[in-house]
Amino acid sequence: MSDHAAYQPVREDKFSFGLWTVGWEGVDVFGGAVRPPLDPAEAVHRLSDLGAYGITFHDDDVVPFGSSASERLARLEPFRKALADTGLAVPMVTTNLFSHPVFRDGGFTNNDRDVRRFAIRKVADNIDLAVELGAETFVAWGGREGAESGAAKDVRAALDRYKEAFDVLGEYVVRQGYDLRFALEPKPNEPRGDILLPTIGHALAFIEELEYSDLVGLNPEVGHEEMAGLNYAHGIAQALWHGKLFHLDLNGQHGPRFDQDLRFGAGNARGAFWTVDTVETGGYDGPRHFDFKPPRTEDMDGVWASAAGCMRNYLILRDKSRAFRADPEVQAALHAARVDELSVATLAAGEHVESLRDDTFDPEEAGRRGMAFEHLDQLALEHLYGVR
Amino acid sequence: MSDHAAYQPVREDKFSFGLWTVGWEGVDVFGGAVRPPLDPAEAVHRLSDLGAYGITFHDDDVVPFGSSASERLARLEPFRKALADTGLAVPMVTTNLFSHPVFRDGGFTNNDRDVRRFAIRKVADNIDLAVELGAETFVAWGGREGAESGAAKDVRAALDRYKEAFDVLGEYVVRQGYDLRFALEPKPNEPRGDILLPTIGHALAFIEELEYSDLVGLNPEVGHEEMAGLNYAHGIAQALWHGKLFHLDLNGQHGPRFDQDLRFGAGNARGAFWTVDTVETGGYDGPRHFDFKPPRTEDMDGVWASAAGCMRNYLILRDKSRAFRADPEVQAALHAARVDELSVATLAAGEHVESLRDDTFDPEEAGRRGMAFEHLDQLALEHLYGVR
Amino acid sequence: MSDHAAYQPVREDKFSFGLWTVGWEGVDVFGGAVRPPLDPAEAVHRLSDLGAYGITFHDDDVVPFGSSASERLARLEPFRKALADTGLAVPMVTTNLFSHPVFRDGGFTNNDRDVRRFAIRKVADNIDLAVELGAETFVAWGGREGAESGAAKDVRAALDRYKEAFDVLGEYVVRQGYDLRFALEPKPNEPRGDILLPTIGHALAFIEELEYSDLVGLNPEVGHEEMAGLNYAHGIAQALWHGKLFHLDLNGQHGPRFDQDLRFGAGNARGAFWTVDTVETGGYDGPRHFDFKPPRTEDMDGVWASAAGCMRNYLILRDKSRAFRADPEVQAALHAARVDELSVATLAAGEHVESLRDDTFDPEEAGRRGMAFEHLDQLALEHLYGVR
Amino acid sequence: MSDHAAYQPVREDKFSFGLWTVGWEGVDVFGGAVRPPLDPAEAVHRLSDLGAYGITFHDDDVVPFGSSASERLARLEPFRKALADTGLAVPMVTTNLFSHPVFRDGGFTNNDRDVRRFAIRKVADNIDLAVELGAETFVAWGGREGAESGAAKDVRAALDRYKEAFDVLGEYVVRQGYDLRFALEPKPNEPRGDILLPTIGHALAFIEELEYSDLVGLNPEVGHEEMAGLNYAHGIAQALWHGKLFHLDLNGQHGPRFDQDLRFGAGNARGAFWTVDTVETGGYDGPRHFDFKPPRTEDMDGVWASAAGCMRNYLILRDKSRAFRADPEVQAALHAARVDELSVATLAAGEHVESLRDDTFDPEEAGRRGMAFEHLDQLALEHLYGVR
Repeated sequence: MSDHAAYQPVREDKFSFGLWTVGWEGVDVFGGAVRPPLDPAEAVHRLSDLGAYGITFHDDDVVPFGSSASERLARLEPFRKALADTGLAVPMVTTNLFSHPVFRDGGFTNNDRDVRRFAIRKVADNIDLAVELGAETFVAWGGREGAESGAAKDVRAALDRYKEAFDVLGEYVVRQGYDLRFALEPKPNEPRGDILLPTIGHALAFIEELEYSDLVGLNPEVGHEEMAGLNYAHGIAQALWHGKLFHLDLNGQHGPRFDQDLRFGAGNARGAFWTVDTVETGGYDGPRHFDFKPPRTEDMDGVWASAAGCMRNYLILRDKSRAFRADPEVQAALHAARVDELSVATLAAGEHVESLRDDTFDPEEAGRRGMAFEHLDQLALEHLYGVR
Repeated sequence: MSDHAAYQPVREDKFSFGLWTVGWEGVDVFGGAVRPPLDPAEAVHRLSDLGAYGITFHDDDVVPFGSSASERLARLEPFRKALADTGLAVPMVTTNLFSHPVFRDGGFTNNDRDVRRFAIRKVADNIDLAVELGAETFVAWGGREGAESGAAKDVRAALDRYKEAFDVLGEYVVRQGYDLRFALEPKPNEPRGDILLPTIGHALAFIEELEYSDLVGLNPEVGHEEMAGLNYAHGIAQALWHGKLFHLDLNGQHGPRFDQDLRFGAGNARGAFWTVDTVETGGYDGPRHFDFKPPRTEDMDGVWASAAGCMRNYLILRDKSRAFRADPEVQAALHAARVDELSVATLAAGEHVESLRDDTFDPEEAGRRGMAFEHLDQLALEHLYGVR
Repeated sequence: MSDHAAYQPVREDKFSFGLWTVGWEGVDVFGGAVRPPLDPAEAVHRLSDLGAYGITFHDDDVVPFGSSASERLARLEPFRKALADTGLAVPMVTTNLFSHPVFRDGGFTNNDRDVRRFAIRKVADNIDLAVELGAETFVAWGGREGAESGAAKDVRAALDRYKEAFDVLGEYVVRQGYDLRFALEPKPNEPRGDILLPTIGHALAFIEELEYSDLVGLNPEVGHEEMAGLNYAHGIAQALWHGKLFHLDLNGQHGPRFDQDLRFGAGNARGAFWTVDTVETGGYDGPRHFDFKPPRTEDMDGVWASAAGCMRNYLILRDKSRAFRADPEVQAALHAARVDELSVATLAAGEHVESLRDDTFDPEEAGRRGMAFEHLDQLALEHLYGVR
Repeated sequence: MSDHAAYQPVREDKFSFGLWTVGWEGVDVFGGAVRPPLDPAEAVHRLSDLGAYGITFHDDDVVPFGSSASERLARLEPFRKALADTGLAVPMVTTNLFSHPVFRDGGFTNNDRDVRRFAIRKVADNIDLAVELGAETFVAWGGREGAESGAAKDVRAALDRYKEAFDVLGEYVVRQGYDLRFALEPKPNEPRGDILLPTIGHALAFIEELEYSDLVGLNPEVGHEEMAGLNYAHGIAQALWHGKLFHLDLNGQHGPRFDQDLRFGAGNARGAFWTVDTVETGGYDGPRHFDFKPPRTEDMDGVWASAAGCMRNYLILRDKSRAFRADPEVQAALHAARVDELSVATLAAGEHVESLRDDTFDPEEAGRRGMAFEHLDQLALEHLYGVR
């Protein structure tokens, strides 16, 4: 594990990046652009050179909002060519329903009906493009679906409209015979004061109410859960339990504060270890997608260093997760902590509540048992540190 | 609204209190009891005198853990008599699966199978008592179901066991013909580092996977959602949307920090207004249950003042919510903000995605429309202030 | 208190606004401008009409970064005329050291020495303008002074440079004979991952190390402290205790999350009450300055409604604070809670530690005393609600 | 770095533990003791065996509150003997002003004057013991100095009393000729709603106002700062800058939530790296003191595993910090990021503000420079991971 040249990504690692990540010019609430626009075709080539397998985008990242059909074709041409030249995939596409002023109160749940209609149409148009480019997943981040104040949004009506949008779009996808699934991306706040479907849980519950719920899953983002102080690895484990981890957004965050979008590995380093461990051992086989923002301090060299770091850190942590799981001392510690015993059904076949009343069980004696979690966690931490 | 003697609770207001709230002796991590034990029968009488309609409890609040059958009967006798004498109801009962050392790793999701069996049995026994006392709701707060560290808990196995417990208990309730529903109480952390089913959303999603999902809903607590920085009124609105707001826990909190359990109204005052507004206008007709802790600074006079304050603040805010909804200027402002337009389906009957492509819609023009939310919110705030 | 037409601001109320507040076009990380640029002269007239007494600005708000001397004069002319026409004051001026790419790593603590030199020069130039316009306070918000990662910033060297900047500028102000004081504005994070001098406390401590520490105080902002979960009223009370509350920024926030800059009164409503109470009773006589951002949902009508709301809410809360302090029942409750006893010295004149050893004091008996804080706080809450 | 047997603590490492850490029985708000009382003498022997050099305590940890003089002597005897037998030092002592009901509203700032007198006396008595045992540092954590509600505490009066207490005690220490310094321990909240002197900064500023300010410094705790979302390494760097880092409390925390007191290294792993780096390179030479709570899941074996982990993790991170600082590629990256340039004064000797106006400086060109922080931070992260 001491050879730091070893962590070179290859296509099979399934790393993908949003075009808006390496292409972020640095505009924030307090300052303007610090980097020039990044040509989408150049992004394709650079990411390919770094070892990524895919690139993703919002419609407006590639074709400016409001472009005519001919402008659109002209804009897409070099992007398509770059994809063809490099073999980079477009595994996911998403729609920007948050930047233009028309979406100031959101898209699917905007109080204005005509804006809601426009939002659905914009998504549908982009779905056509996504399918044309071979995407399997269509991400929906409702960043402006929410409110700053209590009376402004009738939450139950908003959820009706939110459901309507996915029902209508689901019907469209099915009717067109598209092989495409939706992935909702929860976020608790920013840019709205409170966003609808704020966590993995809220989105999972919502999906169950949809007409085409089989078509709809999640795209959880590390930072978005951690902004609510939630454990991301626990969150994606629950999503996996529901069969709904369709895609994911990897990045870094330092707890409840603004959306930092640090490169993966930066931020909560231990959380990143458990994230990779959960992804790698939990049966997820989709893209390892990075949704980060290279800090505004960086020039383009820094941008590419940051992007390379995302992949490299994932590979380092994947190695650590494998070493952790293979370590005999870890296996003994897991057993000592009875972690395996949790997979045994609590009741035997045929038992009912009444059966339990026959147990001889001394809670005082059992109450003296330690769980031996600290020893186990120390082993995990030493794998993270690379000292085992 | 200027007569401050007006807010006297009556039974029809359906206020209830946990026995453990007014009975909290003040033990915390940093200090011991500051108040003497409160006799359950006295609690019944005092709450009745204050205007409450119900009292709730954990099994161990009334009958100490490990009591024999005869001790149990002896302990319950004066409590039952007080209920009979006052007419106070027991609308909800819950089980303590978190105080005794045996539950150090939780109950239903404890790594130890024998502890899990004991936990289910303890709940079943308490269900029998709950039904006997006429409770309609059985709350389950899994306060120790969780982990401090990554490897200690296999989250998906834990969710399997969590589901198993509710499936087994649901089957028991149905088989016994009990008229009782379960209400899960989410919490993100404390006393565990990360608790399973951390928010309203995660619990709602979980419920959908249960065998007897119709029997299971939520008991969301103000402070527990606000500890994750989430909007409680939004949360219960989503629970209502799913038909799952079975019960609720009202109290106060100051954002992400330790679980403060302030009296209702203290903490996030604006959030309390929207909470009451959502409860009162959203079709919820269950108990208005207070789960707070009178601060450790208080003696018993302070405890009863704090309890009275919970109810009084609810009534004050209920009045304000009614005045807000009845105010013609508010109604005009809601209309100006197109809040009502969100209840209109986005697509007309028979329309499909393709229909939208015929819309003539100018996003630039629509992008100049303001939503007029600040005016609306200022009206709401002035109702909270009592200056309208 | 029922006449909602009563809260009309007048000049004597000393309300001031940043030009960048009503002038915010709505650019954030996720979207572009939703409102047109606001002419500074128009801002002056509108704020004057609303009842404000002052307007404040960053250099670049009025004169674009990099303007020539003649452009600068041309830009300032209509602004000066509007000030003269309305009688609006410019009580405070501040410098933008955060928007231009050159400040990507901050101004005074930028790793690049030439940028630091430029930053000091930019501030000095703006100090000249501030004095010319009659400002008494010069605010310094070091929004980009900080770091996203550990090695990038040598914090102790950064504090040396931070001190150097204020020492040099202090010397300049003294040498020029300017009647101007500096006010530092702390913030914990955003836009940087961690900002230097993150709270009121850190800035107060820093000031003590400066050459011209008498010239330097604080400009604490409600939301900045609340982003760290801190109590703003406590914070400004400590600043007053140190004699360092030179200016303040009023707005609204919902705890640890992105910087919301809500209008004053929105956000933490109880906190706003205690803020006004502390300002009004604590001997502060400077401007009541609003540093908020009208939400992106609003058009210009909403902007002015939001600005008017800031002042109106302050006046409502000022009335409530006065009523609270004058209420005999409150005074009795304060006495019952021994709040006044805290102003009595713990040791009598001439006593030493040894004197205390003679006290007859029974901690067990004293430990049974309640503090009666819940009753007191309920009275305060009812004043906030306007039901007393 | 691959030999995981290498990290064995020795006395020279100066590791110390609070008796209340390994001795924590597990009582929290939601549950009772899970572990038996730990005999102080046994704690001394076990910590000595593990490689610690010191043990610290609250008065009431060793001698129960209210003990008579003879009980006190009897209780101390075996503790003293264990110290003598092992050679373990008592580098720090602290007073419990928070557990007994009499301190429900704090000690030094309690509204009740007689309680304040008792608190000062209790501290003075404990100072005598501390000196007798050879302690150099006296820690003061004012855990109950604060408030849950706005009117209950006059913050400025409270700061007067807080100052009075330290002035009186400082006078006592000086008069007695004791060689003892005070170290204040800030905390934002828990167990009080808001605690006075909530952060490193607030405490630093407060100290400047004290009569014996030279005698008073800080004892900052990792988790206490991180509960406010603050960067602990930045905080202690500022404390070092002021010459006030007298002692420190090392543990682990996951951001704004309840006080977790995880073992050092658990929690924010990257923060722990920068903490050790700052301690080791910043000239601090006091004890490396651990103030953690072995989780309630553990039995006594787990307690000692957790304590051993604290020290081991510190040593691992110390090695990493040294390797990071010695790595030529890191040194090059630090230089490329101009980190060293921040130690160069911004103005040359003899320069004034006016000198800066002669600079030829092109902000547009300088604005295109990247800071190269991402590359630098990636190197740091790889040292943390142990892959360099």
